Amino acid sequence: MSRFDRTLPASHDIRAQIAAISLDNIANIAKEAFDKTSIIPLWFGEGDLPTPAFIGEAALAGIRAGHTFYSHQNGIPPLRDTLATYHNRLLGTALDADRITVTSGGMPAIMLAIEMLVDAGDNVIVIDPVWPNIGGIVEIVGGEVRSVRLDYGPGGWSLDIDKVRAACDGRTKAIFFASPGNPTGAMIPLDVQIRLLELGRELGVWLIADEVYHRLVFGQPVAPSLLTVADPEDRLLIVNSFSKSWAMTGWRLGWLVHPPSVAARLAVITQYVTSGTTTFLQDAAIAAIEQGEGFVADMNRYCEQGMRIVCDALDTMPRVRMASRPPGGMYAFFEIDGIPDSKAGCLEILRSTSVGLAPGSFFGPGSQSFYRLCFCRSPEALATAMEKLRPSLS
Amino acid sequence: MSRFDRTLPASHDIRAQIAAISLDNIANIAKEAFDKTSIIPLWFGEGDLPTPAFIGEAALAGIRAGHTFYSHQNGIPPLRDTLATYHNRLLGTALDADRITVTSGGMPAIMLAIEMLVDAGDNVIVIDPVWPNIGGIVEIVGGEVRSVRLDYGPGGWSLDIDKVRAACDGRTKAIFFASPGNPTGAMIPLDVQIRLLELGRELGVWLIADEVYHRLVFGQPVAPSLLTVADPEDRLLIVNSFSKSWAMTGWRLGWLVHPPSVAARLAVITQYVTSGTTTFLQDAAIAAIEQGEGFVADMNRYCEQGMRIVCDALDTMPRVRMASRPPGGMYAFFEIDGIPDSKAGCLEILRSTSVGLAPGSFFGPGSQSFYRLCFCRSPEALATAMEKLRPSLS
Repeated sequence: MSRFDRTLPASHDIRAQIAAISLDNIANIAKEAFDKTSIIPLWFGEGDLPTPAFIGEAALAGIRAGHTFYSHQNGIPPLRDTLATYHNRLLGTALDADRITVTSGGMPAIMLAIEMLVDAGDNVIVIDPVWPNIGGIVEIVGGEVRSVRLDYGPGGWSLDIDKVRAACDGRTKAIFFASPGNPTGAMIPLDVQIRLLELGRELGVWLIADEVYHRLVFGQPVAPSLLTVADPEDRLLIVNSFSKSWAMTGWRLGWLVHPPSVAARLAVITQYVTSGTTTFLQDAAIAAIEQGEGFVADMNRYCEQGMRIVCDALDTMPRVRMASRPPGGMYAFFEIDGIPDSKAGCLEILRSTSVGLAPGSFFGPGSQSFYRLCFCRSPEALATAMEKLRPSLS
Repeated sequence: MSRFDRTLPASHDIRAQIAAISLDNIANIAKEAFDKTSIIPLWFGEGDLPTPAFIGEAALAGIRAGHTFYSHQNGIPPLRDTLATYHNRLLGTALDADRITVTSGGMPAIMLAIEMLVDAGDNVIVIDPVWPNIGGIVEIVGGEVRSVRLDYGPGGWSLDIDKVRAACDGRTKAIFFASPGNPTGAMIPLDVQIRLLELGRELGVWLIADEVYHRLVFGQPVAPSLLTVADPEDRLLIVNSFSKSWAMTGWRLGWLVHPPSVAARLAVITQYVTSGTTTFLQDAAIAAIEQGEGFVADMNRYCEQGMRIVCDALDTMPRVRMASRPPGGMYAFFEIDGIPDSKAGCLEILRSTSVGLAPGSFFGPGSQSFYRLCFCRSPEALATAMEKLRPSLS
């Protein structure tokens, strides 16, 4: 039996998996700048709009109504009803509330999914470039991330189903994809998503679809979703969040759409992981859904406007290479001739321009030479940022 | 490669560990009664006092100040400072803010600790009777719970260190204990806690101390804590929460005191599990600490008053057996002659009296014959409940 070497710090005596996780993420690069106003922070997946006031007022009303006690693990029934109705109205589906579990953000929704499905030694196919947190949680539970990269060509990003099939084996528990994607903004067309569903049915693999950007498709009210074609008991989990479309990143509110048969299991995992989502914030979530359509439409236009300002500027910068404009989401994802190491590049650009970009290396293997820029910002801030960036990118 | 049998519900295709977790917890027993007013719910670890209004107002001020964006994974710096100062004032310690990580409740604090320390196949010594969620999270990560029961005698509950030592082996990663305990209210004296610390140092095992009830010690401002004697880099994690002493169960706010060297690791686990705690609720937490001492003192007296009402009544019920009055916490934990199966007993008592008790079987092996009653309720509600219970317990 080993004793601690107490001359070493406690961090020497933790799980190898945790010690091995890179601390090198956006939060860490940005940490020093969190409270600095001189930096234009285009590195996070977060806009500059505060949450609409009516949502805050609904939270206060919940507090004043005494909704400060423990509540249901799957979420309060009125919010589950509201979210089922929201999907049914947008997508023409017929979801019941027993397919909805409220979560403390999009990330906890993914976390519940992975805790429910993935044992140490199992693997998850992750379609990338992708938000790195799915990989982080798979690693924490001792699973293996198998990257399948979208193909990148003159028309943008596209998925080759055969590559997905080739990456699966008997330990594959899930395929994770996002549409619209982060960082690419790329959409996976419904017919391709259906082929993923069929592959999952054939191989015995769950699908986890991240639809966090589903309202931010330019010129469209909502992205195509497998919810419109799948059966209730298909092995399909849809991750969603209030963060992006309702400007509620700091609120930590999301939801999962799932087969009705796993609702009780998700409740018990929730009990043991977070013990549920803040009760009165769920009142605010109801207000966001029921009264927020105007804001969501504004947010969609705000992002499209930001995309145009950023892409118009990037088009005039000779060293920038980007195959096509993103059809949705919050990000431009591009390469810069002569700075193929994006991690060094981001630090250099931060120092010389005070604009924070996120390095592509965070978004999966093969994207080291890319840079992510969040365009969910005011036209003025974006115009300023692009002019500051110009010398480094031209 | 196995295919799904699509005639079976999706719940057949989840991790064995999750499928095996009992759904038979308090939340599930109580689920049907959540919104029923006729039941007197003494089963949860929750009082009947709403959160003090000034805390709600501080949350709203945070929202109005635009604190609705992502923030630091370890918590906002002013709250970490406030919590370090809180401990230093109460305990005479000299903690720095880098030893504090803000969490979305006490349960996520435990969850971070377990994710940081426990691999599948490792074990955790759990001193019981204990709140069952520590066991739940250890099982979710594929670890083994090793129960060491407090000794129960005429003087109450006490810990035999030799039993703890005997339960440890080379795969033991942590010893979990709570003082004051839930459900017993029992305290582990500081000299015994120091022997646990020495045992941990000797064997190479972390200590996880649940101090969620540290302000609810009757006639005392705070419970004894290992923080007063341990070194900063001792392998010691202290779990705490705003839930009980500040009447904030539904807020989901807690914190962890930890060695400074693991702060960055806790941040990265937080990033991948919850992505942090709701930003403006942390403003409310600062208000709770800075302006809440009067409320905490009231809550302490409220619980002591409830304890007296309940124990005075139990003393007059001939079938009730309880060794001693709890010195702290929110619970009476007792046996009823003739109803040794507490699960059946609780359902029977619920049906016949409309009073909800929690069965001892939830709190560890060996406690099947016990009943837990939460006395953090108004004198009127408790008097009514005890009279309703009288026929079943006499």
